[in-house]
Amino acid sequence: MAITRLPSAGFSITIRISVTADASAIGRLTTCVGEAGAIVTALDVVDSDATQVIVDLTCDTADAAHADQVVKALTGLDGVNVRKVSDRTFLLHLGGKIEVSPKVALRNRDELSRAYTPGVARVCLAIAENPDDARRLTIKRNTVAVVSDGSAVLGLGNIGPAASLPVMEGKAALFKRFGGVDAWPVVLDTQDTDEIVSIVRAIAPQYGGINLEDIAAPRCFEIEARLRELLDIPVFHDDQHGTAICVLAALTNALRVVGKRLADVRVVVSGAGAAGTAIMKLLLRQGVGDIIACDRQGALHRGLADLNPAWQWLAENTNAANYAGDLAGAVRGADVFIGVSAPNLLTGDDIATMAPDSIVFALANPDPEVDPRDARKHAAVVATGRSDQPNQINNVLAFPGVFRGMLDAHAEEFTEEMAIAAAQAIADVVGEDKINPTVIVPSVFDPRVAPAVAAAVRAAAQSPAPRPAADPGPVDLPEIAQEAAAPASPLAD
Amino acid sequence: MAITRLPSAGFSITIRISVTADASAIGRLTTCVGEAGAIVTALDVVDSDATQVIVDLTCDTADAAHADQVVKALTGLDGVNVRKVSDRTFLLHLGGKIEVSPKVALRNRDELSRAYTPGVARVCLAIAENPDDARRLTIKRNTVAVVSDGSAVLGLGNIGPAASLPVMEGKAALFKRFGGVDAWPVVLDTQDTDEIVSIVRAIAPQYGGINLEDIAAPRCFEIEARLRELLDIPVFHDDQHGTAICVLAALTNALRVVGKRLADVRVVVSGAGAAGTAIMKLLLRQGVGDIIACDRQGALHRGLADLNPAWQWLAENTNAANYAGDLAGAVRGADVFIGVSAPNLLTGDDIATMAPDSIVFALANPDPEVDPRDARKHAAVVATGRSDQPNQINNVLAFPGVFRGMLDAHAEEFTEEMAIAAAQAIADVVGEDKINPTVIVPSVFDPRVAPAVAAAVRAAAQSPAPRPAADPGPVDLPEIAQEAAAPASPLAD
Repeated sequence: MAITRLPSAGFSITIRISVTADASAIGRLTTCVGEAGAIVTALDVVDSDATQVIVDLTCDTADAAHADQVVKALTGLDGVNVRKVSDRTFLLHLGGKIEVSPKVALRNRDELSRAYTPGVARVCLAIAENPDDARRLTIKRNTVAVVSDGSAVLGLGNIGPAASLPVMEGKAALFKRFGGVDAWPVVLDTQDTDEIVSIVRAIAPQYGGINLEDIAAPRCFEIEARLRELLDIPVFHDDQHGTAICVLAALTNALRVVGKRLADVRVVVSGAGAAGTAIMKLLLRQGVGDIIACDRQGALHRGLADLNPAWQWLAENTNAANYAGDLAGAVRGADVFIGVSAPNLLTGDDIATMAPDSIVFALANPDPEVDPRDARKHAAVVATGRSDQPNQINNVLAFPGVFRGMLDAHAEEFTEEMAIAAAQAIADVVGEDKINPTVIVPSVFDPRVAPAVAAAVRAAAQSPAPRPAADPGPVDLPEIAQEAAAPASPLAD
Repeated sequence: MAITRLPSAGFSITIRISVTADASAIGRLTTCVGEAGAIVTALDVVDSDATQVIVDLTCDTADAAHADQVVKALTGLDGVNVRKVSDRTFLLHLGGKIEVSPKVALRNRDELSRAYTPGVARVCLAIAENPDDARRLTIKRNTVAVVSDGSAVLGLGNIGPAASLPVMEGKAALFKRFGGVDAWPVVLDTQDTDEIVSIVRAIAPQYGGINLEDIAAPRCFEIEARLRELLDIPVFHDDQHGTAICVLAALTNALRVVGKRLADVRVVVSGAGAAGTAIMKLLLRQGVGDIIACDRQGALHRGLADLNPAWQWLAENTNAANYAGDLAGAVRGADVFIGVSAPNLLTGDDIATMAPDSIVFALANPDPEVDPRDARKHAAVVATGRSDQPNQINNVLAFPGVFRGMLDAHAEEFTEEMAIAAAQAIADVVGEDKINPTVIVPSVFDPRVAPAVAAAVRAAAQSPAPRPAADPGPVDLPEIAQEAAAPASPLAD
């Protein structure tokens, strides 16, 4: 029932082949690759002589096993010799995906004197006297830590810090590309909650925000809560809040398509981990009255014993009717299904039991909770996390703009008001006149998304909702001292 | 007796002035600035009308107080109105001095698929299966952490993590500029030895080396020793080892100038902190037999009680004659004075009591242990840490090349053999025929230095000296797997 993986650029390989130089030689190669199910994207002649030709054949495959099949098929051809197989994804990763670049020239003694000793000493003293100056005179102004313990990486699970680094580097690259934010990976060789909290607290002075990433639930909830308490910079767990923002954005537009309102719908969420919990909290905050959370053992309800605190909270604050059955039973009659769990938990027949004009977000990656082709036979709107299906829900829509806005506002915390503003901004980028069942979220490459999200978050940071009396509220932003506010001469206005 | 601070680019200010437009107006400005002891480096007309002109006057001053005097002098002139003073050093620091840049393009879906999901998952799995792959597939290959607790920053003392950040950013910029090394500041909001050790251990997986910076003695010794034990990447404390390498390089050439040998000289070191201790250990290792260490209370000797372990070690391993007097007494008859301590501890008369052809390295910054002009009347070779005097001994000569070499060799530890090789490489860059009493070290901008140091360190890493039997010796370097070693097609050879 699983949806077939299609060839993609993520599994692109280049095969160096020598082949007898007869008229049909190259044609036999491309035919063979095509028959093996791969897609030829480039064919480059490397060398030739009177009797043979050497070519580099590049093709997209579906996965590593498929790539092996393609190579094996080519090896079996007459007059063909496979010399070398290289993997373009691995080649791109050689030496890492980010670098540290100086923003100042150090060409001569004068430049060295300003950027380093003796000039730098005055800058240090200015910050020692007025710590808020770190936001204008150091990287703190624009820099975010991407912190992971490698315990819940993509769909790969607990692979540890070093193996998670390529993901964190990729995230840092996306932060700069889409939000202009300098992000630095911090992968930790510990999975102890106390130690993670104490490390992040200690390294925080140089950062304007903390992005927690791929930390397993329920540990991630405690780490986030304690860091929010300890730090005066925003702490954002992308697996939770980034996902919740994107789901709320997509759901906002999906409801526009079917003409229903948040307050009226019945929602079933499969997966009560980091993402699912944050999604449900945000939906509750937005007035959704009827939510059922399901995990491996079925619906979370008030008859279950020995729940961890996060699940206990969900059992008490969702599932008004105290439904105690399985996932398939829960979706019966529901308006919205949101899956952030595991592949192939539902069939098209299950989707058929939902309410008319149902909405299905099957976000498990790479294999969704229900085959989207089956779901589309019964649901009005279907979204997945896959890039080869319509309505891809991808956190890249949220985190670059959210941090851009928080850094610009010198925000000291991430708030639910920001999450709601960001979701609204993403939803609004699509435009009322463009929305339809296959377009409920903008493309991740839409250049309007991050600026719109940043502006919304900035506005939310600057006009916060009323707070409890005990909360001191937002602190005044540091003043820009006269000397540094003055524009650089001789380019001054 | 203190050497006067001269105007420098590190204290360059730009003053916006409106002045009555008579023929001599601008002349009066520059004369006034010159008489106040500053040096005019630029004069730019910003605007003018029939009766007045607005100019940006940029000048080097000696320090902040001097800059104030210059502005005050200008304010006192007839027909002159000072509008704004901006400080070029602060302007350069706005927003920090380094940034994080993606090395991969993320223009379209294919590029995203390779650098991030789904392609990145295979790279993660490869590292999970073979942890050595982190050195070729992530930033670990070329990245160093610059770790400080802000406890002993420049001559400023214990200013804490945020205020130390401009120094660490400057250091990172120098690492890239001179060594091609990606260095990232890690400033820690703790000065607890155990916590620093445990944090650096935990953040280490993504780094190919650790550069400790501006951590106070004697804490720095324990932190370094414990991290060397815990980690399989080199741990280098620049204040110790960088300084020791540069001093050994300078001393090697100074001894060439005066025709003495390391084994024969009597050396007095003022300052038994991080730098002084490392210098003495390296000199002892190189066969210097007669060293006296002095600190505030005079010579370290075997009659002192309650010494910390570092000083106890020095008292036991130096000062063969067990001299117990003050610094001035110690330098009497000595061949070499090395100061890494405090300003103005000695006079020219003290230097006159040294042995013939004496060598004086007065490295306290910005004010040396002895006025170098006075020292030069009696010593054959004089060096300082100042950029406005001959023979500047600056760690920039060492650390970029040392880490370049260690990263390239996949070194697992920093060794004394590397330190000696690096010092020799720096000394040799000057060239036998160029050495004279005013040229014992190369310029920090000499492009030959870092490559020469890197090559020497690489060679030392690859042919280590014999080790004790308990030491497992260097571990085999990780093999480059075939798929990634293959050159990128279609540019393959």
